[in-house]
Amino acid sequence: MASRVALVRLRGEDALLSWLRGRLDRPLIGDDAAVLPRPGPFAVTVDSQIAGVHFPADLDSAAVARRLLAVNLSDLAAMGAEPAFAFLALAAPPGFDHKRFFRALLAACARYRLRLAGGDLATSPAAGAIATMTLLGTKAAKARWLRRGGAEPGHVLWLGGTVGESAAGRLLIGGGARLAGRRIELPALPSAWSHSPGLAAAARRAVRRHLLPAPQLELGRWLGGAGAGGAIDVSDGLSRDLHRLCRESSAGAEVSAEALPLPERFAPLCAGLGVDPRELALSGGEDYVLLFTLPPGVTPAPRFACHRIGTITRGKRILLRRGGRRDDLPALGWDHLG
Amino acid sequence: MASRVALVRLRGEDALLSWLRGRLDRPLIGDDAAVLPRPGPFAVTVDSQIAGVHFPADLDSAAVARRLLAVNLSDLAAMGAEPAFAFLALAAPPGFDHKRFFRALLAACARYRLRLAGGDLATSPAAGAIATMTLLGTKAAKARWLRRGGAEPGHVLWLGGTVGESAAGRLLIGGGARLAGRRIELPALPSAWSHSPGLAAAARRAVRRHLLPAPQLELGRWLGGAGAGGAIDVSDGLSRDLHRLCRESSAGAEVSAEALPLPERFAPLCAGLGVDPRELALSGGEDYVLLFTLPPGVTPAPRFACHRIGTITRGKRILLRRGGRRDDLPALGWDHLG
Repeated sequence: MASRVALVRLRGEDALLSWLRGRLDRPLIGDDAAVLPRPGPFAVTVDSQIAGVHFPADLDSAAVARRLLAVNLSDLAAMGAEPAFAFLALAAPPGFDHKRFFRALLAACARYRLRLAGGDLATSPAAGAIATMTLLGTKAAKARWLRRGGAEPGHVLWLGGTVGESAAGRLLIGGGARLAGRRIELPALPSAWSHSPGLAAAARRAVRRHLLPAPQLELGRWLGGAGAGGAIDVSDGLSRDLHRLCRESSAGAEVSAEALPLPERFAPLCAGLGVDPRELALSGGEDYVLLFTLPPGVTPAPRFACHRIGTITRGKRILLRRGGRRDDLPALGWDHLG
Repeated sequence: MASRVALVRLRGEDALLSWLRGRLDRPLIGDDAAVLPRPGPFAVTVDSQIAGVHFPADLDSAAVARRLLAVNLSDLAAMGAEPAFAFLALAAPPGFDHKRFFRALLAACARYRLRLAGGDLATSPAAGAIATMTLLGTKAAKARWLRRGGAEPGHVLWLGGTVGESAAGRLLIGGGARLAGRRIELPALPSAWSHSPGLAAAARRAVRRHLLPAPQLELGRWLGGAGAGGAIDVSDGLSRDLHRLCRESSAGAEVSAEALPLPERFAPLCAGLGVDPRELALSGGEDYVLLFTLPPGVTPAPRFACHRIGTITRGKRILLRRGGRRDDLPALGWDHLG
């Protein structure tokens, strides 16, 4: 009970909420619950971001807000949903810059036409912040929700972007890379890299991609109207999330290792980090690109930069084709209770 | 990044989710977001429960689940809403009994006709669990939502039950009282109490009230159909929540200190704890009873055990009448950023 302070006068919390309501257009905050002014149907998702688990404990509170929103929006993207309402539960340690956090959150909400409609504030029992966001998304009348269970044998398997880069960024952060203002600092570069501006740039892109992922809402919207089969966002690792997609669809898959889209200069970056690029691509996680299936002949527009990586098959086996060989692809990736 | 374990095979998390889905009727879990099968309108609330902040770190995980649900349901009660859907974000330390938590949560959800529709699991960065629940509630077609802003001058101010008892329970827990199975143990009783079974029983009731509050959903439902004015649930302290109700209603209030409903044997219990009963009743918080206003002449049925404690007035002053005196009642209570 230590971090609650009894018998205080109206101050921090109500003052902050009052400041926040002043920045909201037609605020929904102020009652015990928010009455949503728009009818459903709704798709609802919840995701947490925890300092020291999902992001470095010293990360700028504005970046925490953006990352929190992005990973949740990625779930709505995977449903083909339009962002509608956001609810925040934030437990922050003393000294946390709430106003900076909320300014960044509100700016990002505005960009995605999302209304912050309520939440809960508390003191963190840990050294860093713990933030949970609930998002409600709607869909256009004629669109369908995207589901994990919609993949069918014969469908082509697609990826909405490169994989592995976020995990490389996480490794770089573990080695001392950090966000300083808008710049990425790389204090502990392997000496070979300092002679290669291209590699340093690739490292900075990886760190940025990890800290500030870009949810593929426009792609999800397009897929919802284009007759996509199954869809999931790659958060826990490509192979693990592919297993989930296939399990929900009662189908198998065959993925081509050579077809996996890797970021520019990814191989030398991984060499510098001492990791296998293909392994990072298959199991690194937090890529926040959509993994989806389409009937043969349906192709996403070039602006989406999607990559064909395999096919959906009958049966339950999930295979990785490499050279002439085909091996079982295990469900490698993050286990949040691991 | 320390508490994430890379490159694990499908195990803890997916196995737990699979176990959980097997216990849900028509599970909504399995996609990136839950598509709600019921149209709105919805009232949405979010509240966190944090070990060491809101409950003792050694609390039985079943009790954590029940408390988490109860405090959130209390917010729906204050809106006159019917529970509909629940979303859980749970960050738990290693060794946390997830199955015990979920069994208790699902049993409580069934009792309140609430569907657990999704969530997120993570490893806690703190020694104890951090749980956030989002609830969506609906309302009957003819009922109104209860709002904080509906109090009008001339309305009678009511309380849905006694206040101060939960705060006394919190003090007892700070002194060593604990829940052991279904029993409340009181290892550190003031010696005078051991001669009074009545006092020990009052202490046990207070601890139980604190750990396992009872949301007043039936009262909220009745108020939604009975033309109630303003309503709020008392979570942060009667005086503080009364300030909020009055602020949203642009009104004042006058409360009678003598009319405050106190639990049985509350005065000797507080004497043993060395605290002022009236102060605990006004600012202790976590009572989870409804504070509401009704037009004169409208009276809740006796089964709701409500108490008339004052009136809503013109102006903005919030006064406490005691004996012949009337003094300003400050907004005492919890500040979650305090």
